Amino acid sequence: MNYCSQCGGEVALSIPEGDNRPRFVCNHCGAIHYTNPRIIAGCLPFYQDQVLLCRRAIEPRYGKWTLPAGFLENGESVADGARRETLEEANATVELESLYTVFSLPHISQVYMFYKARLLNLDFYPGEESLETQLFSFSDIPWDELSFEAIKQTLTHYFEDRSLGDFPTHDAVIIPPAR
Amino acid sequence: MNYCSQCGGEVALSIPEGDNRPRFVCNHCGAIHYTNPRIIAGCLPFYQDQVLLCRRAIEPRYGKWTLPAGFLENGESVADGARRETLEEANATVELESLYTVFSLPHISQVYMFYKARLLNLDFYPGEESLETQLFSFSDIPWDELSFEAIKQTLTHYFEDRSLGDFPTHDAVIIPPAR
Repeated sequence: MNYCSQCGGEVALSIPEGDNRPRFVCNHCGAIHYTNPRIIAGCLPFYQDQVLLCRRAIEPRYGKWTLPAGFLENGESVADGARRETLEEANATVELESLYTVFSLPHISQVYMFYKARLLNLDFYPGEESLETQLFSFSDIPWDELSFEAIKQTLTHYFEDRSLGDFPTHDAVIIPPAR
Repeated sequence: MNYCSQCGGEVALSIPEGDNRPRFVCNHCGAIHYTNPRIIAGCLPFYQDQVLLCRRAIEPRYGKWTLPAGFLENGESVADGARRETLEEANATVELESLYTVFSLPHISQVYMFYKARLLNLDFYPGEESLETQLFSFSDIPWDELSFEAIKQTLTHYFEDRSLGDFPTHDAVIIPPAR
């Protein structure tokens, strides 16, 4: 950030009075510009003993398998965002059953939130951001070709919880492995 | 938003190619400026059969009772934000037990997330943003003096769930009543 989005003046990092961390503050009008983590809302669509994955047609992780998900928009509930992304990326219609996984990724200031969602029919097909959409049983999941750790952990929880017949909300932090 | 935070040029609302909603786009450098919902992270601190509430020393809802909570910061997990706010507003040290309530407030583009949190000692006292901090039993909760609907619903769930001995994660949308 270089300029104030309100008045166009130059901004500089400083700690506002009563605050305890540096913010971009406008040298001209004094506006304080906060930036905050973003939410990625998505679904784990299931049908009988299978789950629906999408193969990414966009970077990052082009060509990898993922769950339908994307940035929550202003004016949307998390549930509405999850349904919208599932429709956009897989043209899939789902009924949300419960909030299933919540992952904080503090290193990139993101929070993933996935709903367990019943696929209402099999008329899904790839949206613009997907190369393929396909149902997978546990034994067929392309574990080494998944896009993100949050996807892997959501799928792992799901197949474990299925065997137990209980699907509590899982909440965790994902930190990248040290190099 | 009037000016581009990157180059200082004027911005205007338009729908970028491949997108489907209006964004602020810079007329000069072409940067697209997204805005997204913000997360409010907090705790429901409990001690035996009581819960800890804070009386707000700030607007909005000055003087009303609330749970310690505030905007999640970049670089923070939701759990870390919840612990930090509890420390800042009530100087209370807690052990998080589970993610307990998640509320979408689409009309103000906010998502509240509260953890059920065991109060580790009784050495709490008001932080700068609180007038008072106090433990309340169910029968003493100032139901008509609570700050926000999300607080009321979190407390209601808690005392119901306590009687059942099970504390699943609750996820809901809060929409303001029609006028």
